[in-house]
Amino acid sequence: MPEKSVLRLPITKVTEDDFTNTADALAIEEPLEIRLEYGAKNNRQVKNVSVTMRTPGNDAELALGFLFTEGIIGQQADVSSAEHCFIACTENKENVILVSLKEDVVPNLQNTERNFYTTSSCGVCGKGSIASIKTVSAFSSDDTANQISSDMLYFLPAILQKRQEIFADTGGLHASALFDPSGELIMVREDVGRHNALDKLIGAALNEGMLPLKQHILLLSGRTSFELVQKAAMAGINIIAAVGAPSSLAVQLAEEFKITLVGFLRGNRFNIYTQPQRILLPKYENTY
Amino acid sequence: MPEKSVLRLPITKVTEDDFTNTADALAIEEPLEIRLEYGAKNNRQVKNVSVTMRTPGNDAELALGFLFTEGIIGQQADVSSAEHCFIACTENKENVILVSLKEDVVPNLQNTERNFYTTSSCGVCGKGSIASIKTVSAFSSDDTANQISSDMLYFLPAILQKRQEIFADTGGLHASALFDPSGELIMVREDVGRHNALDKLIGAALNEGMLPLKQHILLLSGRTSFELVQKAAMAGINIIAAVGAPSSLAVQLAEEFKITLVGFLRGNRFNIYTQPQRILLPKYENTY
Repeated sequence: MPEKSVLRLPITKVTEDDFTNTADALAIEEPLEIRLEYGAKNNRQVKNVSVTMRTPGNDAELALGFLFTEGIIGQQADVSSAEHCFIACTENKENVILVSLKEDVVPNLQNTERNFYTTSSCGVCGKGSIASIKTVSAFSSDDTANQISSDMLYFLPAILQKRQEIFADTGGLHASALFDPSGELIMVREDVGRHNALDKLIGAALNEGMLPLKQHILLLSGRTSFELVQKAAMAGINIIAAVGAPSSLAVQLAEEFKITLVGFLRGNRFNIYTQPQRILLPKYENTY
Repeated sequence: MPEKSVLRLPITKVTEDDFTNTADALAIEEPLEIRLEYGAKNNRQVKNVSVTMRTPGNDAELALGFLFTEGIIGQQADVSSAEHCFIACTENKENVILVSLKEDVVPNLQNTERNFYTTSSCGVCGKGSIASIKTVSAFSSDDTANQISSDMLYFLPAILQKRQEIFADTGGLHASALFDPSGELIMVREDVGRHNALDKLIGAALNEGMLPLKQHILLLSGRTSFELVQKAAMAGINIIAAVGAPSSLAVQLAEEFKITLVGFLRGNRFNIYTQPQRILLPKYENTY
């Protein structure tokens, strides 16, 4: 993945008393158009459902994760193939991906219109929409599921950082990482768009038959927005930990879905915003 | 602005050997729907052009900046009013803003369809679109315009940080700031969405009759995406400096528009990605 995710360009590097002309690695940002093919054998249709600015790599996972977290498809088994465009594409084939659904699958295209309407792929317009998302998610939260220790949480950002290959080169990428309950890293995905990094991760987990991710921990390299909580909820994730701050609506949605939301996970400190009972705390462990 | 941009919620603050239940300030994230009213006196129409997840505050500037940087309106004088919805809104009035155009103004609504099509408000689908964006911008770059010293650049992030009121409280906001050629801060706008922070800034500058911003420096608190360069170009900005990394497409678009793009502006160092002749460098000042 790194070779097509990074571009080297000439730059001028300036320090206080000198400058040098050198080459620098940049995270590639390019549009990906997601096309959906569906319908009965004699009546196949193709619809463009999204264009997103993404970092090339794991495009099929990105498309699958997007279709799933937006509620357009319900399961991995709905899909017969997902590949870069080979027909009816004259140029930029690597930036168009065609997802073909099985003939008996009816995609929920109402949700694509919801997306067309927005500019930030947030897909909402208030509390009514939060309710509609809740009905879309196939997985319900489980209060008694996973509990993790606060000590284990401290290690996660360092483990992620070691594995963030493109970020190490460019400083320009968001990451989403999935850890198992013992704190072992299962997978990482990176992208210039944080929603794309999470879609890639969930698409990969969907391919592996891992959903719902009730026992896993999702680690986000940056801030937590409403949209990221929405996507995590669609994958059945119960614990989200982020290096950055959450927004108000991210916290409100996490509370509605009974997701444990942790923020500012840095240097052996963190904040718990919602559902703290899943984190075993120091001193008074398990006093909830 | 801070009072409606920040929400205080109860959280659990965890350190290595203790935890406390306390209150924490979060950046508010809420949807803003932008409606456009236009047409001749007897044939006024209202069209929903965008929903964006934003931090409340400076909503009229955000709407104005969005309409301008997306090429839907061409100048501030096109607008007769921009205010929160008072009629035909039963709830969430503060999250709907109505921009009324003068009767003789025809908005360029082709551009709204381009936006509907995207999920990240990037508004592009490849090189063809870069060309179409270029033709939309009313301002051409001026090679011989402003030159600034590298020494002055070093001070800008600290000046911005002092003025980032909401970020200081929440750690959760992006900022866009405008400096004059001597390094004096003219204005700052903050938002959970970096494109919104820039739209607010450009909307405010448009209201003040300051465009094109050929002599100013735009400072971004985070990374530089394609979309941010596009918006800056629409406002005639020649110098963009960012604390974070640029994406590959941000660099390519800056080069096309002959914008000077600086990244990683931290601790008396920075990188110049494009058009270095506008920065007077140490040692060999002005050797280009």
